[in-house]
Amino acid sequence: MSQEKRIYKPNKIAGFPEWLPEERLVEQKWFDHIRKVFESYGFCNIETPSVEELDVLTAKGEVDKEIYVIERLHKDENDKKEARLALHFDQTVPMARYVAMNFNNLVFPFKRYQMQRVWRGERPQMGRMREFYQCDIDIINVDNLPISFDAEVAAVMYEVLEGLNIGRVQLRINNRKILMGLLESWGFEDYVPVTRAVDKFEKIGKDAVVKLLVDEAKLTTEQVDKVLSLVSIKGTAEDIRAIVPANETMKQGVEELSFVLENLKHLPAHAVVGDLTIVRGLDYYTGTVYETQLLDVPEFTGSVCSGGRYDDLAGSYINKHLPGVGISIGFSRLFDVMRQTRPDLLKIGPKSPAHVMMTVPENESDRPLAYNTARALRKRDIKVEMYHAPKKMGDQLKYASRKLIPYVWLIRDGKHEVKDMTAQTQNTVDPGTWTPKS
Amino acid sequence: MSQEKRIYKPNKIAGFPEWLPEERLVEQKWFDHIRKVFESYGFCNIETPSVEELDVLTAKGEVDKEIYVIERLHKDENDKKEARLALHFDQTVPMARYVAMNFNNLVFPFKRYQMQRVWRGERPQMGRMREFYQCDIDIINVDNLPISFDAEVAAVMYEVLEGLNIGRVQLRINNRKILMGLLESWGFEDYVPVTRAVDKFEKIGKDAVVKLLVDEAKLTTEQVDKVLSLVSIKGTAEDIRAIVPANETMKQGVEELSFVLENLKHLPAHAVVGDLTIVRGLDYYTGTVYETQLLDVPEFTGSVCSGGRYDDLAGSYINKHLPGVGISIGFSRLFDVMRQTRPDLLKIGPKSPAHVMMTVPENESDRPLAYNTARALRKRDIKVEMYHAPKKMGDQLKYASRKLIPYVWLIRDGKHEVKDMTAQTQNTVDPGTWTPKS
Repeated sequence: MSQEKRIYKPNKIAGFPEWLPEERLVEQKWFDHIRKVFESYGFCNIETPSVEELDVLTAKGEVDKEIYVIERLHKDENDKKEARLALHFDQTVPMARYVAMNFNNLVFPFKRYQMQRVWRGERPQMGRMREFYQCDIDIINVDNLPISFDAEVAAVMYEVLEGLNIGRVQLRINNRKILMGLLESWGFEDYVPVTRAVDKFEKIGKDAVVKLLVDEAKLTTEQVDKVLSLVSIKGTAEDIRAIVPANETMKQGVEELSFVLENLKHLPAHAVVGDLTIVRGLDYYTGTVYETQLLDVPEFTGSVCSGGRYDDLAGSYINKHLPGVGISIGFSRLFDVMRQTRPDLLKIGPKSPAHVMMTVPENESDRPLAYNTARALRKRDIKVEMYHAPKKMGDQLKYASRKLIPYVWLIRDGKHEVKDMTAQTQNTVDPGTWTPKS
Repeated sequence: MSQEKRIYKPNKIAGFPEWLPEERLVEQKWFDHIRKVFESYGFCNIETPSVEELDVLTAKGEVDKEIYVIERLHKDENDKKEARLALHFDQTVPMARYVAMNFNNLVFPFKRYQMQRVWRGERPQMGRMREFYQCDIDIINVDNLPISFDAEVAAVMYEVLEGLNIGRVQLRINNRKILMGLLESWGFEDYVPVTRAVDKFEKIGKDAVVKLLVDEAKLTTEQVDKVLSLVSIKGTAEDIRAIVPANETMKQGVEELSFVLENLKHLPAHAVVGDLTIVRGLDYYTGTVYETQLLDVPEFTGSVCSGGRYDDLAGSYINKHLPGVGISIGFSRLFDVMRQTRPDLLKIGPKSPAHVMMTVPENESDRPLAYNTARALRKRDIKVEMYHAPKKMGDQLKYASRKLIPYVWLIRDGKHEVKDMTAQTQNTVDPGTWTPKS
């Protein structure tokens, strides 16, 4: 029965990554590890729909990220009666909306983690991803949120990153109240031009920042000097505590930052640093701010994991005061950079999750034993792929070898042998007790 | 600092479900179980982007599911140069496209599982979901696919469903070649009107099916009787083998179906039945077809898990012959029906994944020990939420109780006690060896 086939050759869609099975296996290990650490601190998981009402996404005003809207291909009159829907561009807005809508069913402080895809309509030629995973933790409370959480989210994220085998990681932490307090003491109400300028320090260099501080933020030369000397401070809780505050706001910032650093002293020396250049571009942070650097992977530029404290996140959707603190990993970019530049660390391996490939025995009479053994091994949490047809042992072994399955199980005349595909050794085994080396 | 707040009250978006943290915890357990079973048989995971080129989704012709297209909110000239993108409506088309594009990097037979969200632009008033999870397994091979896989995917899905605590599950299996062969022997080339009529048996009843077979499929009364007597066959491998084939196609169907049933004899008696009424509406199945019934949850109507064998799936995207067999769980609908109608089986519980809540000790001098103990317990895979502020023990216990965290840890003068919140007992413990009852 021959048939004329029409073939449509699909194209790669720029900005929408997908991985091979062996890459996905490593990605799954990353997700499992992250989830395990999040949950070990009692963060619960939520998932929100991929879409929100467009009005929810823009409730705080113009969004600086490009949004994708969705529409039914065959629209009719009914579509006009429905709210316009758009794919979420982060997990913070959806979480705020979720907290507002489920306020009475949540226990506060609400500690949640979220690991979903987000979408941004970036120009693909910029090499940016248009669909990617983020892994976020946030804690939200009613009216007041203890400062101990600012230390906790940092500790959690350090433990997450430290377990991903991406070399040494450094959290750089600041508190915006320090700089805000200084500006306040000079009578400035709008601190945004100053934080925006300082935020660019590493990118544009000192001279350009000075120019911005004078031209845009309208600081005097003396004030510029004081700002620069303040933001040059880097160090431990003790170094931060040495800062002489100009007013109450600045004092609070110094106290909060030194408290947070103090509470992270159980981490290795390189893990955490107080760094007053970290101010974050976003306007809504009001206290602690975080950025993270990979010390051993220069291929990864910028911050792999950032966040901070905000005074009132869900206030656009509910008439409550809900302060929060949170931190977010740009998961897919990190994974992709490691995948492309550091296969030595990522260790892409098998194309199958199986520990063992069970061969189809050469004697038909051994076949039921092969199936039963496979089932018994699975009950002991050993993953067993059954070979699919009676074929020469050489062909069966070749399949296991191409998939990099570490062990092959052979049965002959009721006797069990296991071949270690890495060591290329073969031994008689007891099927009731054998376990794979992990 | 008072501020005029503008509040936008968000609306529930019909068809886009989201769950409370305690519901999500159960959903996660379901996903973990499903993944564990899939992997225990050596299926690897893949994820594809949420979108495909619209031309990929429609490559086989008009799609009977309503598609969502995505567009940047602020379009410009460049958008016109790019392919139109749409959210995938199932995981089969994306898998076929993936196999075609990555053909040279995959090892065949390619066994993959996929658990992603899919989107359909259903009218929300029909109570259907517009965003939901599917859990699929498929095996694809080049040119020939051994029939043993048709038994394997059924065994895997039975094990999956059996572990979800949704009562007894029955897989109903047929082979389309049996009915196709009979029709062929009468000179019919187009068997679709017949399978479409038979597929409606349970919904519209015998008389209506007879009418369809005569009026639409143009069968004689004698032929109708033979078809009805054939599709009334239900039973074991032996019952199927008793069918007298009218030609080679029918003989193949009988052999394949009895082979599959034979290979599922290790499952409980109720688990599998050969059932010739199962023909599936979809046209592309060419052999084995599956449906699944929940025997103890009448609230769930229809098939929870369906699939079958197809001769050539990726042929729209690559010039290869790639037969496959696969089966798919409509995950979110199953979870939602169980959630709404059978809380007795679903057992929604804690609002936190934590095993233990560590209290903040009343004596400041015990505090470092509390933090260190929490860290040590986490190292032993015990999930510990640290209470966030020094407060009265009563308040701390109340928080654990509201979240249904099963154990509370108390430290006083260097001594450790654990309160079992269910049994309401409190005992001195050794922090190095204590473990929660699961």
